[in-house]
Amino acid sequence: MPIGFQIEYHDVVSGARAGTLTTKHGKVSTPFFMPVGTVGSVKAVSQQQLSADIGAEIMLSNTYHLYLRPGVDVLQAARGLHNFIGWSKPILTDSGGYQVFSLAQSRKINEQGVMFQSHIDGSRHLFTPEKVMDIQRSIGADIIMAFDECPPGQSEYLYAKNSMELTNRWLERCIKRLDETDDLYGYGQTLFPIVQGNTYHDLRIASCEYAASKNADGNAIGGLSVGEPENVMYEITALCCNNLPADKPRYLMGVGTPWNILECINLGVDMFDCVMPTRNGRNGMLFTTHGVINIKNKKWATDFSPIDESLPCTVSNHYTKAYLRHLFVADELLGLQLASIHNLAFYTWMLREARKQMVDGNFLSWKSSAVEQFRQRL
Amino acid sequence: MPIGFQIEYHDVVSGARAGTLTTKHGKVSTPFFMPVGTVGSVKAVSQQQLSADIGAEIMLSNTYHLYLRPGVDVLQAARGLHNFIGWSKPILTDSGGYQVFSLAQSRKINEQGVMFQSHIDGSRHLFTPEKVMDIQRSIGADIIMAFDECPPGQSEYLYAKNSMELTNRWLERCIKRLDETDDLYGYGQTLFPIVQGNTYHDLRIASCEYAASKNADGNAIGGLSVGEPENVMYEITALCCNNLPADKPRYLMGVGTPWNILECINLGVDMFDCVMPTRNGRNGMLFTTHGVINIKNKKWATDFSPIDESLPCTVSNHYTKAYLRHLFVADELLGLQLASIHNLAFYTWMLREARKQMVDGNFLSWKSSAVEQFRQRL
Repeated sequence: MPIGFQIEYHDVVSGARAGTLTTKHGKVSTPFFMPVGTVGSVKAVSQQQLSADIGAEIMLSNTYHLYLRPGVDVLQAARGLHNFIGWSKPILTDSGGYQVFSLAQSRKINEQGVMFQSHIDGSRHLFTPEKVMDIQRSIGADIIMAFDECPPGQSEYLYAKNSMELTNRWLERCIKRLDETDDLYGYGQTLFPIVQGNTYHDLRIASCEYAASKNADGNAIGGLSVGEPENVMYEITALCCNNLPADKPRYLMGVGTPWNILECINLGVDMFDCVMPTRNGRNGMLFTTHGVINIKNKKWATDFSPIDESLPCTVSNHYTKAYLRHLFVADELLGLQLASIHNLAFYTWMLREARKQMVDGNFLSWKSSAVEQFRQRL
Repeated sequence: MPIGFQIEYHDVVSGARAGTLTTKHGKVSTPFFMPVGTVGSVKAVSQQQLSADIGAEIMLSNTYHLYLRPGVDVLQAARGLHNFIGWSKPILTDSGGYQVFSLAQSRKINEQGVMFQSHIDGSRHLFTPEKVMDIQRSIGADIIMAFDECPPGQSEYLYAKNSMELTNRWLERCIKRLDETDDLYGYGQTLFPIVQGNTYHDLRIASCEYAASKNADGNAIGGLSVGEPENVMYEITALCCNNLPADKPRYLMGVGTPWNILECINLGVDMFDCVMPTRNGRNGMLFTTHGVINIKNKKWATDFSPIDESLPCTVSNHYTKAYLRHLFVADELLGLQLASIHNLAFYTWMLREARKQMVDGNFLSWKSSAVEQFRQRL
């Protein structure tokens, strides 16, 4: 078994749970957040900082981006992404389904797969379920994702149904390809199916049941946080959590704000990823234990208090709001680094704290006040 | 006495010497290199990295830039630059003379000072020797520089002579202003005169003698590395070293390549600064113990050896050439960070090694082979 999952605590009054995910590259406490290292680098953050300053135990990378650059040949020559980037902890790779949908210049989907043009140079490429599994073998992540079609958020019922059924047939082909091929670097890789079905309840339930029938080591919920109202996102997440195996980790893809994550932990999600802490950080938006800060605002010019004194992170404790504002105003690269590290440290801390509150039996009341506090604008 | 200087070793066959500079913010072994943190940040590098990964014991900042942003009010409210940026080791500030000459949109020099327009917003400002001393009081660096005129490298004799004499009169006014004012943050600051005189030997000698007559804690050589041939730069540096006090630290401003620095240590220089390791690093040019690398070249695509295995720097040891090349090709911010840290670690190591070789009595022979090795293109 490439990965293991043990649930250690069930919250008594919510769907929240705390456990441990075990991989060949180490253990990760759940629930957890994965910093996004799209092309094998969490933007503006070094692997040492990811580990020491942020406390990240796992990171995510993207098959689509890594396939285009540095390419499969380089990754194989390096004997996998862990070696290539110098990161010895677990890695999860997304399959490229979402990136082909959101980034590629043009794409043509049929039963076989997706023909698309690179967003970098317009070159044409074909992704099939088999090809995507082969690429993910070359990358060598511990957890790899099935190749799915990601229909637009507003798709009509028939389109969403056909798309979900195509994703199911592709899942069969992904599983078959993995069964026929070996891992390349001496440790196992495990495949998570991705649940689709837009916001249609019956499609989501069918998709969950299909995914569950594969008895995978974990299951992902895709196609959310793509423009639907927040309450709909919560509703579909709850529905999926209720229809996915309770003893397997549930991964909600691409979500979201700190309060989104706390609400979805409450619904039974174990794994998260999102570009928000790094992308918003680079735009000067900081998530803190006191609320949200736009660090470019004049009001921080002489605020010599730490960015956030409550986090176990030397960056958040050591540098002041006034200094970080100065770095943004003066367009200094260090500003991007410090804001990204701080935001990721906040996310990591928040998920650890959620776990701690669960163990202490206080999760639900803590969550209510935390959501209120974290989302207020300072 | 704000700073002290003890020479511990004189190289037996060259002008090189090794010593210790003592300031209220700590001791620094000489010869040393100061990373340039123009607006209070060494570009793309955090203060923790500067200390732990690079081993820097002192940094440099610029009066011109700090005066424009964040401004004197913010720096005073923070109680000085050390506090503002979170750096407890020594700092040296340049006076702005060179920046007004090289950066400001327009400038008008007269006896009183320099009227210039900001390179940021075109606003008009007047720098006088008195004003520049006041700003440097507010910044609070351990070592501060006299306000000098920096004439173009190709100036005619009469212009260079007049300019040097103006710089001398301004030096008087700097000293007088400092005598009339107190340090603001409870520790002393010391002023270094700057020797000018272009490439004219008699002017340089006169300028050295004038600077020496002030009995300052150290003396700087300015106006070099501004386009003159390398051998002329060495010739004038040698001349200045021979005409400046032997018992005071000599600071060669803005120089240079690794081999420039080694040659000038040989001539008796103790202190250096230059933007080259960070600026060239951001362009993908790496200085290593084996020679110079353009990391963007295709030849590094599958070179999985460390950036430089010989340096005591986790970045240089941990990341491979292939990964760093990938970061540059994919335009990832981490590439700028890693290249900057590596280059600064190389410079810091090189000056420590020069000191060690001096103590071991091998400096000159080591320098000859090091210069040859470091400057070859890989």
